[in-house]
Amino acid sequence: MTEYSTSAEVHAADKIERKQLYERSLSLLQRHKEKQRSDEEQGTEPPTPTSSTHSFTWFGLHSVAYSWLEQHFKDVELIIICGSSGRAQHIATELYSKYQKFIKLFTTIGDGNFFEIYKCGPVLVCSHGIGLASVDIFLNELMAIFKTLSHFKFKVIRLGSCGGVGVKAGTLVISTQALHYQTVEPEWHVHMLGEKLTYSGIFDEKLVQMIHDIATELSNRKIKEQSGEEEKEAKHKVPKVVVGKTFTAETFYEGQARLDGAFCKYHESNKQEFMIKLVDLGVKNIEMEGVALAGICNKYTIPSAMIAVAFVNRLESDTIPAQASPQDLKEWMEFGVEVIIEFIHKHVFEKLETASNN
Amino acid sequence: MTEYSTSAEVHAADKIERKQLYERSLSLLQRHKEKQRSDEEQGTEPPTPTSSTHSFTWFGLHSVAYSWLEQHFKDVELIIICGSSGRAQHIATELYSKYQKFIKLFTTIGDGNFFEIYKCGPVLVCSHGIGLASVDIFLNELMAIFKTLSHFKFKVIRLGSCGGVGVKAGTLVISTQALHYQTVEPEWHVHMLGEKLTYSGIFDEKLVQMIHDIATELSNRKIKEQSGEEEKEAKHKVPKVVVGKTFTAETFYEGQARLDGAFCKYHESNKQEFMIKLVDLGVKNIEMEGVALAGICNKYTIPSAMIAVAFVNRLESDTIPAQASPQDLKEWMEFGVEVIIEFIHKHVFEKLETASNN
Repeated sequence: MTEYSTSAEVHAADKIERKQLYERSLSLLQRHKEKQRSDEEQGTEPPTPTSSTHSFTWFGLHSVAYSWLEQHFKDVELIIICGSSGRAQHIATELYSKYQKFIKLFTTIGDGNFFEIYKCGPVLVCSHGIGLASVDIFLNELMAIFKTLSHFKFKVIRLGSCGGVGVKAGTLVISTQALHYQTVEPEWHVHMLGEKLTYSGIFDEKLVQMIHDIATELSNRKIKEQSGEEEKEAKHKVPKVVVGKTFTAETFYEGQARLDGAFCKYHESNKQEFMIKLVDLGVKNIEMEGVALAGICNKYTIPSAMIAVAFVNRLESDTIPAQASPQDLKEWMEFGVEVIIEFIHKHVFEKLETASNN
Repeated sequence: MTEYSTSAEVHAADKIERKQLYERSLSLLQRHKEKQRSDEEQGTEPPTPTSSTHSFTWFGLHSVAYSWLEQHFKDVELIIICGSSGRAQHIATELYSKYQKFIKLFTTIGDGNFFEIYKCGPVLVCSHGIGLASVDIFLNELMAIFKTLSHFKFKVIRLGSCGGVGVKAGTLVISTQALHYQTVEPEWHVHMLGEKLTYSGIFDEKLVQMIHDIATELSNRKIKEQSGEEEKEAKHKVPKVVVGKTFTAETFYEGQARLDGAFCKYHESNKQEFMIKLVDLGVKNIEMEGVALAGICNKYTIPSAMIAVAFVNRLESDTIPAQASPQDLKEWMEFGVEVIIEFIHKHVFEKLETASNN
């Protein structure tokens, strides 16, 4: 049938897959119908918005009471954000299984149509989608909630994946500042009625230090745990931690000088020239949201930080190296998740644990 | 407890909600554990990528065979894209329940972490997230698949929500062209190694006409169906259809001159000035993805179009009007979905129906 599979192979695989697909499609349809029914059962008359209720459309929160907002957001101390819904769910459920007895309220918030928000007691774990516009809407909507509550005493940390610049795949990069894709300066700007608004793209120095301490400690602990192995060997396996500047790109392919995009029109030498420019500036990685995160948080004087796991060293390759298995990627990202969980342990739950033991 | 709820009300609601939340959190954890288990059961050894397999990381497709790509993408005639995952699922399941007997393959594609992709026979229904960067990655990844298959004979139609400009809430706007937020010209540009690439932001004229015919016919049919009512009354209820230019904004709040964002620094008069500029240009609505859709599709000579349901008339208001209930919003969007389904009926499934009847 094709150069890669024999006709018989395709036929056999097809038969199994068809059955699975049929079952899957039925369950999909079932879920959809159930949702429709449940929407209907909740009454055909939706609540009428009043001046005492609040709506945050992008989160799918319609006409919620002030008391509901208080219950879900007033105790928030830390907000962990990441691109994908799967990663947010993973961190949230890890937190819940670890700190169940301290988490008074564990739930999802909103309809999850664009953003997933998990409330794990005083920690929110959220997905913000891809790119500056998506994270801009997400943070704007979130800040509007906290503005309603006049509550801004929290920190925001983003965990992402990224392309490393001169660092090997698997390295955890802690950002000191995010550079804008056009000006290559640490500044976030957004166009408003033709005027350009600018906010600082520098992350919170103290928070960066706190995260760095935790990541280094965790990395050293891992090296010690590799008992029976040579220390050198263990060091090779444990993810490296580096601190440096981040280039926030507009898009994933051309915006990051990748040669493997569907539209690429330039050559290896042009790419390398661009990369060398970034190296000279002290850039350690490239991603797509950091400058908006830093800018928006700085505007509100909220400490923010960003850690990102390099899936590739962009000086060597554009795609994830062939020798890296999905299992490697999972393990690399897992180190990032561990750093986040450890940070939450140290700065949120440890005091609750101490209090409950005394 | 607060000015909006009595302490007893909060307490009673709290008790019920706590129980529900507890059950919900358990089921969440259960789902997570099941997923982990199922991942483990599938073997700890992930497939090793080879030169005969293909990976599309953003879709969560790792090491898929050419034959698999052929089976899932080679017959695609039409791609429907929309922002949210819920809307994509809704359209896909509607299609499946209506055209079951013609849909040979109904399944989800990829891990759905960032984008949901439903294959409904020759139609793909997908979510692309929010903003230009998100839709850029989505289309880039999709085009890379079709490039692998050397198959570009399909059309792309986006269904979105938007702010209307001088059109009343509930109006369906069919775009002729999308204007870039910086140049206010019908052009998509993206930065590549400091250079600006530009593609046309004009949608396919023929496709626009086809969609307009269907929307008008559907609208007229609805007016006729309102039996026993005055025609004038019916006309008032049925969504209006207009054709015009679209302004594609960089962000949702300042980028669209909204006064209700968390960061807004300007006044009603500045907003109105901006809006009048758009009206003068023939702009009928504002959204956040159109110019990338048109630009990328034009680059590949793929016919593309965009319809969007106005949830608000931005000349009158920034937020969804208080008198519009969630039920209204649902009905307005449902008209957009009906137009899409009718288009698919006329241009994809009708010929299959005719063939099966002969």
